[in-house]
Amino acid sequence: MNKIEHIGIAVNSIKLAGDIYQKLLDTVIYKTEEVVSEGVITSFLQAGPNKIELLEATNPDSPIAKFIAKRGEGVHHIAFEVNDIVTEIARLKAEGFTLLNDEPKPGADNKLVCFVHPKGTNGVLIELCQSNSY
Amino acid sequence: MNKIEHIGIAVNSIKLAGDIYQKLLDTVIYKTEEVVSEGVITSFLQAGPNKIELLEATNPDSPIAKFIAKRGEGVHHIAFEVNDIVTEIARLKAEGFTLLNDEPKPGADNKLVCFVHPKGTNGVLIELCQSNSY
Repeated sequence: MNKIEHIGIAVNSIKLAGDIYQKLLDTVIYKTEEVVSEGVITSFLQAGPNKIELLEATNPDSPIAKFIAKRGEGVHHIAFEVNDIVTEIARLKAEGFTLLNDEPKPGADNKLVCFVHPKGTNGVLIELCQSNSY
Repeated sequence: MNKIEHIGIAVNSIKLAGDIYQKLLDTVIYKTEEVVSEGVITSFLQAGPNKIELLEATNPDSPIAKFIAKRGEGVHHIAFEVNDIVTEIARLKAEGFTLLNDEPKPGADNKLVCFVHPKGTNGVLIELCQSNSY
C-alpha cells in the first residue's frame, strides 16, 4: 500500500470540528462535499502527503451517526491508497480478511473504495482507496 | 505539520497483531522496541511515507492497558511530524489546545513527543513528534 491516504474522524458538527482541525493543522479545509449514499458530509484538510477527513452524519441511519452513538466522536477509519483496488481486494481475501464490499464502490473525493471488517484488524476499520484517475 | 508520522494502534498481543498487519500492509515489521517509561512494547510497519505503530501494554498501569480496558483494541493516537516541536507546542497553547505535557519528552523511535488532550480534538489523541536528528 502506497501511503495513508486519509484518516476519517467522526464528528458531531463539521463546522465546529473544521474550526478545530484548521487550527490544529495550521491549514484550511480545501474541500467539503456530501456523499449521499453514505449519509455524510465530509471536509478535507491536507497534512503533507496525507489528509484528514471530517465526517458528520446527515441522517440517523448513517454509519457515522451509529458510530458516534456507540463510541462518541473519534477516529472512524484509516484509508490506505492503493494503485489497483481490484488486485488488493483479491489479495486481502486470499489472506483471510473479511471485506465489507467485494466490489469497489464510489467514495468521497473521487475515489473507488472498499472497507475491511474491523473484527479482523484489531478493531480498526480499514479502507482501501484508489483514485478514479488511475 | 509535515505529515502523519504514524498511527498508534492499541492491541492485546503485539505478536498476533503484528502477523495481521504484516499481511494487511504486505510488508514486514522493521522495528520492535520497549518504551519502559510508557509501559509499552511497540512494533513499527512502513506504508510509504507513513508508519503504523502497534502498542501492547507491559503492565496494567500502562496507558494502553487502560485504553483497551475502556474501549477495546483500536486506534489509540495519531502522530503528526513537526520540524520544531517547541514552536508547535507554543502555537497550539496559544490556539487554546490543552497539552498533556508542556515540555517535549522522549518517545518511541527516537522521537521527541508531546500529546494534545483528546477533549479538545473531537476525541482523537494527537501526538506531535520531532526526530531527535533535526
